[in-house]
Amino acid sequence: MHVLDKLFRPASVAIIGASSDPEKLGGRPLAMSLQAGFPGRIYPINSRVPVVQGVQAYASLVDVGERVDCAILAVPATSIAQELEAAARAGADVAVIFASSFAETGAAGRQQQQRLADIGREHGIRILGPNCMGAFDVRSRFYASFLQAFDHYDGKGWPEPGAVAIVSQSGAIGAHLFVMLRDRGIGLSRFVTTGNQCDIDVAECIAYLAEDEDTRVIVVYLEGARQREPLEQALLLARARGKPVVMLKVGSSATGAGAIASHTASLAGSDAAYEALLSQCGAYRAASLADLVDVAAACHVGRYPADHRVGVISLSGGGGVVLADACERAGFVLPPLPESAQQRMREVVPFCAPRNPVDPGAPAMTDPAVTLKFLQIAFESGAPSGAAAPSTWLVFLTHLGHVPRMLEPLREGLIALRRRDPTRIVALILLGPESVGAQLRRDGFLVFGDPLDAVRTLAALCRIGAMLGTPAPERPRLALLRLPGLEKPSAELRAGPSELQARTLLRQAGLPVAPERLVLSAAQAADAAHGFGGRVALKLVAPQLAHKSDIGGVMLGVEPDAAAAAHNELLRRWQASGTPGAPEGVLVSPMIEHGIETILGVQVDPVLGPLLMFGLGGIDAELRPDVVFRLAPVERREALAMIRELRSYPLLDGARGRPRADLDTLADALVRLSELAAAHADRIAAIDVNPFIALPQGGCAVDAWMVLQPEEPVTPLAKETP
Amino acid sequence: MHVLDKLFRPASVAIIGASSDPEKLGGRPLAMSLQAGFPGRIYPINSRVPVVQGVQAYASLVDVGERVDCAILAVPATSIAQELEAAARAGADVAVIFASSFAETGAAGRQQQQRLADIGREHGIRILGPNCMGAFDVRSRFYASFLQAFDHYDGKGWPEPGAVAIVSQSGAIGAHLFVMLRDRGIGLSRFVTTGNQCDIDVAECIAYLAEDEDTRVIVVYLEGARQREPLEQALLLARARGKPVVMLKVGSSATGAGAIASHTASLAGSDAAYEALLSQCGAYRAASLADLVDVAAACHVGRYPADHRVGVISLSGGGGVVLADACERAGFVLPPLPESAQQRMREVVPFCAPRNPVDPGAPAMTDPAVTLKFLQIAFESGAPSGAAAPSTWLVFLTHLGHVPRMLEPLREGLIALRRRDPTRIVALILLGPESVGAQLRRDGFLVFGDPLDAVRTLAALCRIGAMLGTPAPERPRLALLRLPGLEKPSAELRAGPSELQARTLLRQAGLPVAPERLVLSAAQAADAAHGFGGRVALKLVAPQLAHKSDIGGVMLGVEPDAAAAAHNELLRRWQASGTPGAPEGVLVSPMIEHGIETILGVQVDPVLGPLLMFGLGGIDAELRPDVVFRLAPVERREALAMIRELRSYPLLDGARGRPRADLDTLADALVRLSELAAAHADRIAAIDVNPFIALPQGGCAVDAWMVLQPEEPVTPLAKETP
Repeated sequence: MHVLDKLFRPASVAIIGASSDPEKLGGRPLAMSLQAGFPGRIYPINSRVPVVQGVQAYASLVDVGERVDCAILAVPATSIAQELEAAARAGADVAVIFASSFAETGAAGRQQQQRLADIGREHGIRILGPNCMGAFDVRSRFYASFLQAFDHYDGKGWPEPGAVAIVSQSGAIGAHLFVMLRDRGIGLSRFVTTGNQCDIDVAECIAYLAEDEDTRVIVVYLEGARQREPLEQALLLARARGKPVVMLKVGSSATGAGAIASHTASLAGSDAAYEALLSQCGAYRAASLADLVDVAAACHVGRYPADHRVGVISLSGGGGVVLADACERAGFVLPPLPESAQQRMREVVPFCAPRNPVDPGAPAMTDPAVTLKFLQIAFESGAPSGAAAPSTWLVFLTHLGHVPRMLEPLREGLIALRRRDPTRIVALILLGPESVGAQLRRDGFLVFGDPLDAVRTLAALCRIGAMLGTPAPERPRLALLRLPGLEKPSAELRAGPSELQARTLLRQAGLPVAPERLVLSAAQAADAAHGFGGRVALKLVAPQLAHKSDIGGVMLGVEPDAAAAAHNELLRRWQASGTPGAPEGVLVSPMIEHGIETILGVQVDPVLGPLLMFGLGGIDAELRPDVVFRLAPVERREALAMIRELRSYPLLDGARGRPRADLDTLADALVRLSELAAAHADRIAAIDVNPFIALPQGGCAVDAWMVLQPEEPVTPLAKETP
Repeated sequence: MHVLDKLFRPASVAIIGASSDPEKLGGRPLAMSLQAGFPGRIYPINSRVPVVQGVQAYASLVDVGERVDCAILAVPATSIAQELEAAARAGADVAVIFASSFAETGAAGRQQQQRLADIGREHGIRILGPNCMGAFDVRSRFYASFLQAFDHYDGKGWPEPGAVAIVSQSGAIGAHLFVMLRDRGIGLSRFVTTGNQCDIDVAECIAYLAEDEDTRVIVVYLEGARQREPLEQALLLARARGKPVVMLKVGSSATGAGAIASHTASLAGSDAAYEALLSQCGAYRAASLADLVDVAAACHVGRYPADHRVGVISLSGGGGVVLADACERAGFVLPPLPESAQQRMREVVPFCAPRNPVDPGAPAMTDPAVTLKFLQIAFESGAPSGAAAPSTWLVFLTHLGHVPRMLEPLREGLIALRRRDPTRIVALILLGPESVGAQLRRDGFLVFGDPLDAVRTLAALCRIGAMLGTPAPERPRLALLRLPGLEKPSAELRAGPSELQARTLLRQAGLPVAPERLVLSAAQAADAAHGFGGRVALKLVAPQLAHKSDIGGVMLGVEPDAAAAAHNELLRRWQASGTPGAPEGVLVSPMIEHGIETILGVQVDPVLGPLLMFGLGGIDAELRPDVVFRLAPVERREALAMIRELRSYPLLDGARGRPRADLDTLADALVRLSELAAAHADRIAAIDVNPFIALPQGGCAVDAWMVLQPEEPVTPLAKETP
């Protein structure tokens, strides 16, 4: 039995600090579980009264005389450690801690929280929280939570059983998402908020729900993960089980990330790293709370578009235009209906617009039978090519949600049509009270108030369906061994590898790097240039010089005969700049011309590890970046996919009669760079290979820059809370 | 008195084809006007019954014995022309025509519609429609419409008086927009749908509403205009009167544009041309129906953000993060609250997050007084710099719209705070029944269900506020006279100007063009190249050659000594290509090197006229276009604005130590090109100056391509219906 089963469907529960007031933190879990009819044994712990909310109470957990599955600690922060230890000694398997004032408040709070984690590990009790809103399970009817979200204007505010699970790091957002789904008529399986995550975290909950047979869709609100591995594994498990993960990952802005740090004391990784992780694992990243709920509700139906063909039927010609615009922008195609279907429609309403988008015309606004006739003809029309009709339909019903005499017959007709082909996806767009939409969703339709939301959600369904239909790539195994030079880096190297050192390390990792010679005199420079036999680049080499170009420390395209003079000019510039110390020398390297400038880079995210970047180089790309990211390491296939994702890819692929770049060399370089970064994620902080010149045959790095981690890395908070 | 006053608030009305059935086309206008209590005189015209819906009927309009302001023609399409003429003869000023089966059905229908337009012009009667849903005026209580949108689940479906006017080309979308606004609690001034626009069009309605004292915000659904001038004038008039125009312009997709053609027989101009027109006139172009209504509702409040600083107060820390993310992406700044305010907040809730975003913590979820205390401290806090507190606040109240015992005290407190400073903009984000949001909007708050919608709408308010605060630019006067060569173009020129002819025309228009010589032999080529004194470009000149580069007809960077050989090579390629006829010669032109490649272009939109384009040149820009558009002509200031709007502008402005391009020359070239196109909009179809090389001093066109209109331009539909 999974330990989280003891959280969601325990046989026995103790509520430490149980209160007779159903509105209080210690009263709500009991009140809700009782009201819902939780069939397990509940032991309120309260030393001052014999009965709490009609249930016999105990002075202490020891008095219960039974080991409980789950202990809810509804006591102030100051008593938590003591009660946690007592619960553990009494044999409880999992504890739920609501109290705040832990890691989110600063150093002292972090220490307090660390103590909870230590107790948990030491005594073998698992912990949800602290600073969380707990969990509940709609089918087991256990409410280990104090959430206040069951109010509803028509009194029907309690969750109904369904197949969407909510996992939220924030309690309030978890409750908010529940209300959004409930108001849309979407039922729930389980609900869990993880708060400060001193033990059980979002990743563990996702992995659990991936295996949970009551759950078909996993909705996640994530502020930050503690480690890459568990989250990645959980997301891949959900994917393998065919369950979409629909996630709102926040903290993409500087301000947002700041608010998180003071909120649940999480480390928010850089957004690009999360973007890469979620995309690599096939999770759907929602753009907003509304998008999250729209997409989750659509996934709840469990059907995904077969292709990008859609049919549009609109009770307003204008609505058809709005939908057609939105569909085209989202990459959908509106195939015209076959002439036979169009003819049948014209027989119903002579001046209808029967192509696609279909507009039945004015009679449909007053006669539901007309609309239903058009729907039936359209749904069963087939395509002109002889193919089947689109599997996805958008039906714009304007404000008929407000008109029961119109809506009811339409609804009945739609349900009958659905019975004839339940695989068809029918998205209704209409205005009306929320309850109308909720009912139609329960009937198996997608329902939206705005055409654009409908199209955006269908586009998401397409992506999710495609993702669920393809196996997740296996995480590549590292081919690269650790480089000796980085195993125990010299103090000099650690302070900042020079360009020469960086080039050497890249070469050792297997990247092609343009040849170079470090010269110490003008004569050596001339000799080196003549040795290379063509135009050369000269660069000052000096660790203390962060940006060579600031003092004009780079000279490009120098003819061999001019190399000696160029060398002396660089030394003159060095002196003129007043930079302290002396340069190590001047690096002479052949010019690699007529290739395409690309950028290869690595940035190590403190939580998710090395992030690999590939992009177009040159000044234009600097102003309008064209880059793609993946978490390292990547395999060849993934590296090639990165290259192809670049918007400027045609440039590399021989657009406009240019020679095609050697993509194999480029992909190899990306793989090697990613392996270098992954093998030394503890040492390397960042690498820039800018530019890497892609040539028709081969290619090579002509500049390299690398930064190592400081000697004693600042332990990220994540490490404190295992 | 404006003629549209006779449509919206007539003293007397005749309903031709008045019906006793209030659900029929001829029954609804009478039924609605009676139910609303329209105080004017109504004359139902029905030859078969003496009384219609309790009102004395007349057999014909002549029998009324009075001239009426407005005639509603509720008769079938086949009788419309006859009844229109009768109404005109009886002295009616304006006719409303509901019937469809006119221009939207094809050539025969277009002829029918043209007849209506002719009758209208001949007899001096103005026409709304055909194929429209009519109009209504909430204050005059006149309903010249058959719309069916007043159903509402709680029975309160009739429009309330307010300051938003709806102008819609589509009747059903007009009704849909009315329902969306009504359900949000936003009242209406006037409502008009223009349908096939055989006379009164969207532009005329906007101009009328710009001067209408009951209207503060003009909501528009536009499929296509018939001419640029009236729409532009109407938009500029609304702007001058301080009234935002919030517009959904559809038909941006190929499919969408197709649907329009069959829908209201409008010409949908190219999207870039409309985008330019709306932006140049300061209209807000909505991204969706929901965006349209969100922004219109926000404008209805009539307050615009003073700057980009916002304060965020969230009953959920997570909500604060979501809002902070969205604000930052939208360009807003969240200044931290002053330390004194933060201290006061900590005194209320010790473990609150008081910076900005502000999270009062758990106590606020159960005690409205806590939230109100935080709001008051925040609103009146001032900024750390000593400046005033932000004028714009986002307040995330999660699902409290469902909890009256929490919401009511919050609402009262918010209203009290608002009274102390009515200029503050307070956007509430909450879940709950629609009626709660509608009430809060009537109280003067902005209300949203999703944080992203709130932030997007505030960003729109900023742009609209800034637009209303600056005077519209005057339309520039054309400095350029018409070029004789284009006044009466030769047959040869009309067939397609050669590059030499195009260069000559551009030079005549005042654009700098690189010098060139047309040569007829290798010796002449060598002579020309030596004359230019540097590397040259050679190009085949032949009108029959659409794409010179397809047969290798261009050679760049040729040394003068190699010019003769290059000339012969071009002739060899010509022969090898098998192109019929002979080339006119070879064009020799000096290479303009080391500048920045830009593109200047013109595309003439059939409705809106010449559209000027400026963009970055080169292959990278071809893959990832970086272009800006304006309708021609443009003045110098506007041309400079175009240049600065380019994402790659820093490249032209001397980024990375490059020489700054001569922006004056560039701007002059744009002005001249735009004037050339505007002066000859009837002759020119398209111009490409690609590239125009921008140099540190000066700059010039090095290639030119031009297409003229065919001899007998296909008369666009717009011209048929004046």
